[in-house]
Amino acid sequence: MADLLVFGHKSPDTDTIASAMATAYLLNNAYNLNSEAVALGEPNAETAFALKHFDLAAPRVIQKADTPEVFLVDHNEASQSVDNIADVTVAGVYDHHKINFQSAAPLWFINKPLGSVATILYGEFQQAGLDIPANLAGMLASAIISDTLLLKSPTTTPMDQPALAALAKLAGIEDYEAYGLELLKAGTDLSSRTAQDLIDGDAKTFELNGQKVRIGQVNTVDVDDVFARRAELEAAMQTELSADGYDTFILVVTNILDSDSDLLVVGDNQDKVAAAFGVELTEGRASLPGVVSRKKQVVPPLTAAFEA
Amino acid sequence: MADLLVFGHKSPDTDTIASAMATAYLLNNAYNLNSEAVALGEPNAETAFALKHFDLAAPRVIQKADTPEVFLVDHNEASQSVDNIADVTVAGVYDHHKINFQSAAPLWFINKPLGSVATILYGEFQQAGLDIPANLAGMLASAIISDTLLLKSPTTTPMDQPALAALAKLAGIEDYEAYGLELLKAGTDLSSRTAQDLIDGDAKTFELNGQKVRIGQVNTVDVDDVFARRAELEAAMQTELSADGYDTFILVVTNILDSDSDLLVVGDNQDKVAAAFGVELTEGRASLPGVVSRKKQVVPPLTAAFEA
Repeated sequence: MADLLVFGHKSPDTDTIASAMATAYLLNNAYNLNSEAVALGEPNAETAFALKHFDLAAPRVIQKADTPEVFLVDHNEASQSVDNIADVTVAGVYDHHKINFQSAAPLWFINKPLGSVATILYGEFQQAGLDIPANLAGMLASAIISDTLLLKSPTTTPMDQPALAALAKLAGIEDYEAYGLELLKAGTDLSSRTAQDLIDGDAKTFELNGQKVRIGQVNTVDVDDVFARRAELEAAMQTELSADGYDTFILVVTNILDSDSDLLVVGDNQDKVAAAFGVELTEGRASLPGVVSRKKQVVPPLTAAFEA
Repeated sequence: MADLLVFGHKSPDTDTIASAMATAYLLNNAYNLNSEAVALGEPNAETAFALKHFDLAAPRVIQKADTPEVFLVDHNEASQSVDNIADVTVAGVYDHHKINFQSAAPLWFINKPLGSVATILYGEFQQAGLDIPANLAGMLASAIISDTLLLKSPTTTPMDQPALAALAKLAGIEDYEAYGLELLKAGTDLSSRTAQDLIDGDAKTFELNGQKVRIGQVNTVDVDDVFARRAELEAAMQTELSADGYDTFILVVTNILDSDSDLLVVGDNQDKVAAAFGVELTEGRASLPGVVSRKKQVVPPLTAAFEA
């Protein structure tokens, strides 16, 4: 029985799952802790592809943290964490997002503005002088590919490519571009996913000037494929909006081959969303050429527009 | 002209000054930035002793940050930072305190629960493969000695002693215990200091359940020396309380040889302070045997008592 749970954000993506697994391994093997990587949801199709490729089991899904201390990866805000986060002590954080965090005591809090938490962890393993097992290196490489869209997202930093190249080598991936395209495409098989899963599979909640804004993102190789299911998606967004008290639900539909996105917006504040990107919404839809990063290209202009 | 100011907290202590100097050196020499270490106040007697010993000038004192980006060391809370902190972007933080921080974007935020920021920085120089100049190593060694009271404070961690030993060696300090005692004693020559300087020389403001609590600390080799000036100290505390709107002013008078402290409390909430430490206050004074660390032994019980 572990005495420290390690987990990433809700609606886990590949970086969240891989970083939780790698952090638990690092804490147990370099720092003699007794931690367990868990998840706040089932792996998405992309993560499942990577886990299968590297012959690893998905972390156990928890609803509640039941250890007195926890270690967060790939998030630091309570709204994105386990529901009972206020009842446990955060002993450490590895993250690469904006910070909204309070603690009662000093802790390990390592936040770096790099493309993925996996890139940070690659450095932490090096610093600790700990070898990364091949399958874990494969998951970390997959996480970098996923978060940076194969080093093409504007969130990519000069530290990500060397980390990816080194991790791919450790993992025995001969051509990380070829593997990366396979991985990303595995995440875009949308036909088998429900509308609920598409809007929630990679969604986060943000407080923007008092408004509760839900922002989901779907990667695809054909935006029209997604908008063919528009009525169904809008209904699911509307249902969740009412059920969870969101003011606005924004779905970012991203073409990973062209590096463009289309937005679909449901709920209040449509004027603010339009103003944020300098576009007009046509029945809640707008095209955003060149936009692929929620963190870097979607949340900051929305924050500014909601505070204007 | 630097484009990134690096500074520690108000009422700077040796760790704040040394860490700002070392961080600027690290950023400029390992990361090609153009930063300048500055301070939010003049060095105290202890820091002045260390600067003189290692033949270094004190950092320039600023009232306002005038670069768009800043780098914080040894603090992360706005209440302990430069007055116009809300107008600038925090690009990075090296700290070892509890966290109360929000940002609009990801940043470098390295917080570790070690005895001093200097200990963290020793690791950062190692990680960057950058040699530490002898005089800077002397300042960092002084910072560890200061923050851990020569490794005797309960804030001391297993990482601090090896860092101190290594830094002392780099600095050419033959016997760091002997140097450390000299350094700490240099900070306790209270006769030449005004009451205002004694209460404010190492003071921080905390919001405890809505109450504004000012906590100053004075190191001495004889507690009675300080309490001989009690009337004068209480008057200064009362004046500052009224002027700055504090609800409570607590002065922690610490005997660095015996590792004990006496409290002097002015203002409201005397019952809560008494409850926090399970003592009775006699005319605002109480003895706290074994208490030397504001961070670890004073603020946490006060926080609990104010929230009870």
